[in-house]
Amino acid sequence: MNELAITLDMESGVYLYEQIYQYIKNEIVEGKLSSKERLPSTRALAEHLQIARSTVELAYEQLVSEGYIEAKPYKGYFICPVGELYHLKKEQSVKREEIKKENSYLFDLSPNGIEMKAFPFSTWRRISKNVLAEHQKDIFEPGHPKGDFEFRDTICRYVYSFRGVNCEPEQIIIGAGNDYLLVLLGKILGEHQRVAMENPTYKRAYRIFSSAGYEMSTMPIDKNGMSMEHLRNSQANIAYIMPSHQFPTGVVMPIGRRMELLKWAEEAENRYLIEDDYDSEFRYKGKPIQALQAWDKKEKVIYMGTFSKSIAPAIRVSFMVLPKPLLEQYERNAGFLSSTVSRIDQAILNEFIGAGHYERYLNKMRKIYRTKHDCLLECLRPFKNKFHISGENAGLHIILTSREKGTSEEQLANTAEDAGIKVYGMSNYFVEEKDAKDEYAKILLGYASLSEEEIRNALLILQKIWL
Amino acid sequence: MNELAITLDMESGVYLYEQIYQYIKNEIVEGKLSSKERLPSTRALAEHLQIARSTVELAYEQLVSEGYIEAKPYKGYFICPVGELYHLKKEQSVKREEIKKENSYLFDLSPNGIEMKAFPFSTWRRISKNVLAEHQKDIFEPGHPKGDFEFRDTICRYVYSFRGVNCEPEQIIIGAGNDYLLVLLGKILGEHQRVAMENPTYKRAYRIFSSAGYEMSTMPIDKNGMSMEHLRNSQANIAYIMPSHQFPTGVVMPIGRRMELLKWAEEAENRYLIEDDYDSEFRYKGKPIQALQAWDKKEKVIYMGTFSKSIAPAIRVSFMVLPKPLLEQYERNAGFLSSTVSRIDQAILNEFIGAGHYERYLNKMRKIYRTKHDCLLECLRPFKNKFHISGENAGLHIILTSREKGTSEEQLANTAEDAGIKVYGMSNYFVEEKDAKDEYAKILLGYASLSEEEIRNALLILQKIWL
Repeated sequence: MNELAITLDMESGVYLYEQIYQYIKNEIVEGKLSSKERLPSTRALAEHLQIARSTVELAYEQLVSEGYIEAKPYKGYFICPVGELYHLKKEQSVKREEIKKENSYLFDLSPNGIEMKAFPFSTWRRISKNVLAEHQKDIFEPGHPKGDFEFRDTICRYVYSFRGVNCEPEQIIIGAGNDYLLVLLGKILGEHQRVAMENPTYKRAYRIFSSAGYEMSTMPIDKNGMSMEHLRNSQANIAYIMPSHQFPTGVVMPIGRRMELLKWAEEAENRYLIEDDYDSEFRYKGKPIQALQAWDKKEKVIYMGTFSKSIAPAIRVSFMVLPKPLLEQYERNAGFLSSTVSRIDQAILNEFIGAGHYERYLNKMRKIYRTKHDCLLECLRPFKNKFHISGENAGLHIILTSREKGTSEEQLANTAEDAGIKVYGMSNYFVEEKDAKDEYAKILLGYASLSEEEIRNALLILQKIWL
Repeated sequence: MNELAITLDMESGVYLYEQIYQYIKNEIVEGKLSSKERLPSTRALAEHLQIARSTVELAYEQLVSEGYIEAKPYKGYFICPVGELYHLKKEQSVKREEIKKENSYLFDLSPNGIEMKAFPFSTWRRISKNVLAEHQKDIFEPGHPKGDFEFRDTICRYVYSFRGVNCEPEQIIIGAGNDYLLVLLGKILGEHQRVAMENPTYKRAYRIFSSAGYEMSTMPIDKNGMSMEHLRNSQANIAYIMPSHQFPTGVVMPIGRRMELLKWAEEAENRYLIEDDYDSEFRYKGKPIQALQAWDKKEKVIYMGTFSKSIAPAIRVSFMVLPKPLLEQYERNAGFLSSTVSRIDQAILNEFIGAGHYERYLNKMRKIYRTKHDCLLECLRPFKNKFHISGENAGLHIILTSREKGTSEEQLANTAEDAGIKVYGMSNYFVEEKDAKDEYAKILLGYASLSEEEIRNALLILQKIWL
């Protein structure tokens, strides 16, 4: 073949070489040029089309590099056998199907809400700007898999001062959120672990460990936290606990139970405690209670902290403190994984914490949340005959427990929902809903994202329908 | 007991309640106050210390909440049994042990380097500033687990225009880097997969899949990419490939092999192709070659792209396009995992791409890299007698293959290192070093992070020692 029926469009704005390339490619794709057929020489085609030979060469080169044709020395260009060819789907239908469901409630008393109004946006912006201005090239270069040393060092000092956590920067691993760190922890610990979790609990952690293939045991909670009797009778080698403020029950684990857990962990080499310290920042009576890790002398506690709860969920930065004996395992099983947090974000947070903004912000938020918390408790006074109130010393929600066996959680939630108020029944936080066997209905009331006025209005409605 | 030998220091700046709390806590920790002992009443202690009763109450409350003492109605406060108590480690030694090893090379020809000098820092800063200014509260709120819709929509349009990838935003999952997305993909696909990878390959992906418990098979590479014969003879149901530019061999997979792979994938329901399109942006001859996914009519290709290579390694943003049939599996196995990318970063990149800055930046970088690439090729002219040059049409490194059997890769790398130049032997990229059986030594020369002058100087040295 010496000619191709190409019609070039000089006005189209599409490069000539591309027009030639596209034409020949289409001919091949549509089967009009078949395997082993020879293309016209670049010189012949260039003359035929009255264009520069280099333009044809460029088109042929592109076809060669994509494997549509091949160049045989001294013989010319031949169509390659390309097997069955598929046509490109031409249509691109970008449907906007995932439109956020509008929140149809008047008030949502979610225990996971937070308040962002008091966030020092301008400080954050200023730090962002400075970080980008001061660091040019360097901050865009690859960082340490564990996170930047400076940031880990800052966290190290912070958790020591505020939580009593003893560690060195090398023990800290920064990650994009708790979920990621739990996935990573699964990689570090490796297969065949048995994890004990309280029930009800942070269900996402349960699902992450399950999906890592771990055997899971759920433990009942007594007034001091995870039942030691059940833990001892289980085969578990890892216990996942939230000593400062169990989610969702609000139990603050007393020192005695903490010591029992540490003792349990020390009894076998492969035993560990995972301390999820997710919202220890918010405590309304007296000073914050030290982390369990602070008492750990035998390197048994894996400590987890997050900025997603204390700053903003959209800030995907959490950290994990590994006991030293696990560091080698980390290197072996997961040390090759790149960091999941951008170095810019690390530098911003580093400055935010290091310069004291974080502490000031937490102090401010503690006051704000305490005001809301006190407001909620006051609004709950009329409820006291019908409900017991608990979990009120820390965290961002409180718990109402019905004093009557007759009232069901479902009933309470449904009547509230009908009145435009979303409340959260305790049964949602059991690993399986059927585990929730409590005779007395329990409802969580989160207040963090509501204003005092909203809390008052919501509670007035609940008062009308529940009392 | 009615008295405690507390000496309060009014000048210390430590709250009185905290001094009392600390004193009693220490007495308990040190065993001086023993279990079941009764504390003086708040009234008695307040009188004894000549301070307000509420101060003592606050101290007691803190001790109660931490579980050191308990309040018994009508009886008073009693020391709790706290088991064996551990002392807090007092010393906090923050050693700066992880000092970055200084790069002792004159020139490092790493194939993983990139050039950041041309990055539009000021544009990035401006966008960051605007994103933080325009969005206040909303951008700090929790985002969609897959990533924000707007950003996924932008990526969707981008990969369609530039790579021919057909998808809808719902198929896109944003994640903090390729490593994370591969870990996530492991969760989505679930257990018992057999993955075929080229050898040499991107070893980190190999390790991630291994650590997910997958059975791995390594396939030899012929001039068109992964050997189909070996793939067909393997038990693998997943093939991991880099069709636009295989790392590290630089092979660009021709259309014929792509079709064979698609055909293979269609032959069984659980077969998938993972297309890692990590550096498709940089191609120096003609136009970029369409992604394999563009030809996929039967939902068989899992497409992976990243901004860590094309913008900066420190930008931890990659994405994955799931075939529609895998979406349900995603929801079930991993849909509960929070996003790993901060919404601020998503919004910045969204604007950076959407406003055309990314395209302009890539065009600029393509020119810069092409200049370096051409410079390197020119410097390599004198090497042609002794080395074959390949992989020169795309990516950020080229490959030298010795024409003599006598020369070993180790020898070449060592003599270079002695002269202050770091080069990378091909054997480093085999899953196991022993797999590298090539008789002819192969060396990778990366040029992205060096200036033209540095390339010239480095190559002059190599010329002296290798030729």
